[in-house]
Amino acid sequence: MSKQELVVLGQDDQSGACCPGLVAAPVDENQAAELSRMFKALGDPVRLRLLSMIASRAGGEVCVCDLTPAFDLSQPTISHHLKLLRQAGLIDCERRGTWVYYWVLPATLDRLSAFLTTTQTAEGHA
Amino acid sequence: MSKQELVVLGQDDQSGACCPGLVAAPVDENQAAELSRMFKALGDPVRLRLLSMIASRAGGEVCVCDLTPAFDLSQPTISHHLKLLRQAGLIDCERRGTWVYYWVLPATLDRLSAFLTTTQTAEGHA
Repeated sequence: MSKQELVVLGQDDQSGACCPGLVAAPVDENQAAELSRMFKALGDPVRLRLLSMIASRAGGEVCVCDLTPAFDLSQPTISHHLKLLRQAGLIDCERRGTWVYYWVLPATLDRLSAFLTTTQTAEGHA
Repeated sequence: MSKQELVVLGQDDQSGACCPGLVAAPVDENQAAELSRMFKALGDPVRLRLLSMIASRAGGEVCVCDLTPAFDLSQPTISHHLKLLRQAGLIDCERRGTWVYYWVLPATLDRLSAFLTTTQTAEGHA
């Protein structure tokens, strides 16, 4: 599956349209379970640094070989953190030859951002 | 300390101005430690439901006595989750007579929202 297809799927499945922000209405149990899994993936300093290293890369994707030198951690540990970010739908990856390349899934990040903001509810509450 | 003072302090300390989003630049270790603590507090379905119950309350604050009936959990367990949300700077509270009243700190939520969004960087990257 190509990178483009994955990004499009992410946008379909995870658009903000499905989920009002936390200021608009209490989240139900299913939404809370799903969203808390994503936030839990962000609740670790190494994963947060990895995610922002990937998200801020000009070309949009990063070789794992460019991520590991920034950390005083083993390659398997870094790979484990990347796997958790991937399982949370925050990033995706593709192997090319020796290395694995990572990119963020912006739809997931924007969905979480929209969920947390308190400033977009002005319309709803006039 | 009054509610108003707490909100203002939160806005001063935690404005998005200090912290570019994760798309703008890699977060440093200190930022990652601080932000990941907040995301970790969000990484639990009960806490996420509590937070959104508080955030979506019309009057802006909720008595703990209105929160507990929604959960099949003991009062001490609910109080523990509320304490973690409070320690993360996401909510604050005040005791009035028998009950404790909770409200969200919008500056923290908006800071996390701004950190995650991938759509506000158009200016920076033209």
